Amino acid sequence: MAILKLERLDKDAFAPFGDVIEMGERPWFPINGGTTRRYHDLARIQVEGEDGHAGVSMARGDAFHFPLRIAMLERHTLGSQAWIPFNGTPFIAVVAPDGAGDRPDEAAIRAFYVAPEQGVNYRQGTWHHPLMSLGRQGDFIVIDRIGTAPNCDEYVLHELRTIDGSFRDEGI
Amino acid sequence: MAILKLERLDKDAFAPFGDVIEMGERPWFPINGGTTRRYHDLARIQVEGEDGHAGVSMARGDAFHFPLRIAMLERHTLGSQAWIPFNGTPFIAVVAPDGAGDRPDEAAIRAFYVAPEQGVNYRQGTWHHPLMSLGRQGDFIVIDRIGTAPNCDEYVLHELRTIDGSFRDEGI
Repeated sequence: MAILKLERLDKDAFAPFGDVIEMGERPWFPINGGTTRRYHDLARIQVEGEDGHAGVSMARGDAFHFPLRIAMLERHTLGSQAWIPFNGTPFIAVVAPDGAGDRPDEAAIRAFYVAPEQGVNYRQGTWHHPLMSLGRQGDFIVIDRIGTAPNCDEYVLHELRTIDGSFRDEGI
Repeated sequence: MAILKLERLDKDAFAPFGDVIEMGERPWFPINGGTTRRYHDLARIQVEGEDGHAGVSMARGDAFHFPLRIAMLERHTLGSQAWIPFNGTPFIAVVAPDGAGDRPDEAAIRAFYVAPEQGVNYRQGTWHHPLMSLGRQGDFIVIDRIGTAPNCDEYVLHELRTIDGSFRDEGI
C-alpha cells in the first residue's frame, strides 16, 4: 500500500486547493479603537445556486490515529467548505487536483498536517478527504453551502494510501 | 451611571438580534460515515451589495475586565457578523433593537454573557458593541461581509452604562 507523506501546511503550498485560515505571521490591522487585531479576509466563502446560502455549522469529529487509511475523496461542486478547530485539535487535510474525466488526479494526491491553530477552506470543487481529527476528538466550526441541491461527489481511489505520520521533509 | 445586568445567552433570548453558534443541546446528525456529528445551520451569513463577498477573518481582542463601560454601539447595515472564540475565551455581547430615527432603542439595551463554547452571529443591521473579551486575550473567528462600500454606523449613547458582572437572574 502506497505511503502518503505529510506536508506542513502553509498558504502557498495549499493555494491550488483553497485557503489556510490562521493568524501566524499574517498581516493584521487594528479595529475597535485599537483593542482588536483583525487578520482580514483569510478565506473566501463560495456559494452557487439559487437554493443555497452560506451558513455556519459546528462539527464534532472522532479521533483518528496513525496509520490513516485513505480510500476515497469527495468534492462539493456548489461551494467552498471551511474547517476550523476550536478545541485545539490538529487534523489531516488530504486533497487532490482534478484529473481527466471528472475525477481526481490520483497520482497527485497530497496530505497536509493542519496544526491546532490553523484551519482550511476547501475551494469550490476541490477533491478532499472527510474530516480526520488527529489523536483526539475535534470540535470544528464549519462554513459551507447549505441548500437542497446535490452538492457532494464521492470517488473511490484505485490505490489505497496509508499515512503513517512521517513528513516529506524528514530524512530521505 | 446605569448598571446593565448580564443575561445568559441562549437561542431564544438572542433571536431578535441574531444567532447563537453552539453545540450545547442542539440536535445533530451523523456525516462522514458516522465519524462526525454535524450541528447543522446554526447561523446564516448575510451579504448585500455587488461589491461584497462573505469572508473568514480572525481577530485577537484585548482582555477586558469588569466593570465594563458601554458608551457606544455600532451596526453593519450590509451584512451579518459572526464572532466565535477558538481559544476558549468568554465575551460580552451588548445589543439593542432599532429605535426611532435610525438609531438604537437605548432603553432596550441588553448584555449577554457568551460562554467559552458559544459564539454569536449579529444579524444584518443589529446594533452591538465592539468586541469585549472577558478576562483574557481572545482569539476569534470572524465571518462577515468584505467589500468596499461603507458598512459601519456608530452611535454614541446618551447615557453611559456599566456592566459590573452581576446577572439579572441573581437575587434582587
